[in-house]
Amino acid sequence: MGRWEPNARGRLEKAALELYSERGFEQTTVAEIAKRAGLTERTFYRHFADKREVLFPDASPLQTFFVEALNDAPHDAAPIDTVGLALDRIGELFQGRRELARQRQGIVSANPELREREVTKMADLSDAAARTLRGRGVGDLAASLAAEIAVAVLKVAFERWLDDPGDRDFGHFARESLDEVRALAAGA
Amino acid sequence: MGRWEPNARGRLEKAALELYSERGFEQTTVAEIAKRAGLTERTFYRHFADKREVLFPDASPLQTFFVEALNDAPHDAAPIDTVGLALDRIGELFQGRRELARQRQGIVSANPELREREVTKMADLSDAAARTLRGRGVGDLAASLAAEIAVAVLKVAFERWLDDPGDRDFGHFARESLDEVRALAAGA
Repeated sequence: MGRWEPNARGRLEKAALELYSERGFEQTTVAEIAKRAGLTERTFYRHFADKREVLFPDASPLQTFFVEALNDAPHDAAPIDTVGLALDRIGELFQGRRELARQRQGIVSANPELREREVTKMADLSDAAARTLRGRGVGDLAASLAAEIAVAVLKVAFERWLDDPGDRDFGHFARESLDEVRALAAGA
Repeated sequence: MGRWEPNARGRLEKAALELYSERGFEQTTVAEIAKRAGLTERTFYRHFADKREVLFPDASPLQTFFVEALNDAPHDAAPIDTVGLALDRIGELFQGRRELARQRQGIVSANPELREREVTKMADLSDAAARTLRGRGVGDLAASLAAEIAVAVLKVAFERWLDDPGDRDFGHFARESLDEVRALAAGA
């Protein structure tokens, strides 16, 4: 088997998610993932440190992308609008990945250790967003709370997007949730 | 040593937090905690299943208290006001415990495994708050987001209360943070 396989990473991810769903995360071995993908274990380890990294990529694309999207907002935007613009952009990252995301969600929810990892990743994302907002001159308290709101909206909208039987995109649910936050805060 | 020691639980908690701070959580044994408290290991295990439970009590008093406080709000209160009233009440639980809470925070932040546990507890608290709000007739999306806002305010206000060099109570910081959420959502 050659060193460079076309879309090896994507094939490994797909095989891993299938096996984790069918047999459980704990019960699946790297050898089985590689076999299902038609690749070698060596190729697996070229792309992932271990089988958990398939679910939680080391350099979190979500965090990198979200921080960039916050920084791309106009400098005079109110923090809530900066958050709204960044959430709108995040949809690009999820496009075409809803089935994979649904599968991943089922695996993570079924395993307490993976769920702890997931909520910790979300807490890290909130910290990164707060630092980014502070770097844009937002005050300390406002930055912490706007970041928490951003991650809350992301989480809730993401779940609604996964549960939606239709084919509306993530941005629809992000806007709906952020509007609901505005209404709630206004005492609706 | 007799079966009933006055305030054994409190003495064990104090001794454990001291030792976790001095030596690290991993390096501390139950025998050392009991010794520092002037009690037996048997007494420790009458109060705690293991040394982690000192930091994360099994039946979370915070969750029980918060759910009750949400349910005590007038039935016609807007969700954000229900949250505000419950956060005001939460201060009762923290009264006189700021030094212990500061010590605990230092221990939890220093240990990745304990931090994962902590953020998971906060996610559980948010789920419980959302269920409670739904039980009070709040819509699904509004309940999820109001619960996320509640936990975000609790977290941020708690940190500010711990960091405060003065002696303002938790309620002061909870109100300040919830006001900031209102201002942010209004586009300030």
